[in-house]
Amino acid sequence: MQVQVISSVNEASSARFHHKTAIIIDVLRATSTIITAIAAGALCVIPAETVMEARALQRPGDLLGGERFCRKIAGFDLGNSPDEYTEQVVAGRRVVLTTTNGTRAIHKAMRADHVLTASILNAEACARTAIELRRDVVILCAGSHDEFAIEDGLCAGLVLDKLHTISGVGLEMDDFGTAMLALYRHRSTLIRETITNGMTGKRLLKLGMKRDIEACSSVDIYQVVPRLNGDLLMRA
Amino acid sequence: MQVQVISSVNEASSARFHHKTAIIIDVLRATSTIITAIAAGALCVIPAETVMEARALQRPGDLLGGERFCRKIAGFDLGNSPDEYTEQVVAGRRVVLTTTNGTRAIHKAMRADHVLTASILNAEACARTAIELRRDVVILCAGSHDEFAIEDGLCAGLVLDKLHTISGVGLEMDDFGTAMLALYRHRSTLIRETITNGMTGKRLLKLGMKRDIEACSSVDIYQVVPRLNGDLLMRA
Repeated sequence: MQVQVISSVNEASSARFHHKTAIIIDVLRATSTIITAIAAGALCVIPAETVMEARALQRPGDLLGGERFCRKIAGFDLGNSPDEYTEQVVAGRRVVLTTTNGTRAIHKAMRADHVLTASILNAEACARTAIELRRDVVILCAGSHDEFAIEDGLCAGLVLDKLHTISGVGLEMDDFGTAMLALYRHRSTLIRETITNGMTGKRLLKLGMKRDIEACSSVDIYQVVPRLNGDLLMRA
Repeated sequence: MQVQVISSVNEASSARFHHKTAIIIDVLRATSTIITAIAAGALCVIPAETVMEARALQRPGDLLGGERFCRKIAGFDLGNSPDEYTEQVVAGRRVVLTTTNGTRAIHKAMRADHVLTASILNAEACARTAIELRRDVVILCAGSHDEFAIEDGLCAGLVLDKLHTISGVGLEMDDFGTAMLALYRHRSTLIRETITNGMTGKRLLKLGMKRDIEACSSVDIYQVVPRLNGDLLMRA
């Protein structure tokens, strides 16, 4: 299995996803929130690139969620904190979600044969699903402000580690993948610290969102792997 | 001291180097060759972006060196293998050098207050010089084929590790720098293996250039730090 890792959404061209399984990672916080919402029983998450598009996609009964500048959008039901997406709130509902980088990354990968979303919360389940899909893999780290974000690279390394363990064969990785696997293996016992000390982690701390970092740092607490089905992210 | 790391020459905009000390890294092989040439007594190395520019810059007595597609350029005196740049060949001579990526990276950084070249061969000396120059630092990994190359990231991590040790204070790194430091610390006892197994390493092996990889993998065998002075790289 060949695996390539892209360092930020800025670096992603649609052509790289052809005939591949794409794994989208935005640990802080889009994919963590999407996974939490689906695990809590949301019917689906609909990624929207803009606030206007999100409003246009909303049908009666749908929840509107998302952020701009890390904050909830005016008039939206929910922000981008995983903790908001509880069973009581989202079970049986569709969620339209727009975030600065994560939803943009999902749209970038739409030409892939399969699009999965991963975070620290479901890395092993995502690796397992990717192996079952029998395609080469492109992991897209969403990043932040058009730059590499360490929490996404760390998660890419975690997924690579799981792909390696589960497949039982050598992965053919590109150089950036090799570097991210080394990053993860060097920091595997310091997941939360690494995320907290990254640029986005520091920004969230300043905004009083420490709890969000905690909610995004627990390894493999979910088995769900949200997968793109048309325009909807649903349980794989 | 703030330190940023840029993953490939493609990612580098001139503006990022303003008021900074730039450290250019192209382990396989441009900066390793430049350092070897200066250590062997070359008067200076003149980086040229194109073959035509290299020929135009050549004055009587100058050596012409460089590569395209990893091979020596027709009519040039020298290729891009460090081993060719011996004292017998280069002592007291000027060398005009053009390579696919490395010399392009040097030109990208020309707006920096200071431009230094680093490789595995002189990482500690380069870190020491950068600290003496009392500017924030931007490390530019040249990369290969417009992509991140693991040997350059590994060397960036090595330089960061030395900056950290020598300065004795915490560095303010960006997320990519933090990742490269982790990469280096995870692989610090496997430098040659990591370089050999990277994309460029494999390409050189196929071309029968194993000796070049060895010549570029020895940690801190040189104290020279080639530094840009006008258009010339000279002993700092």
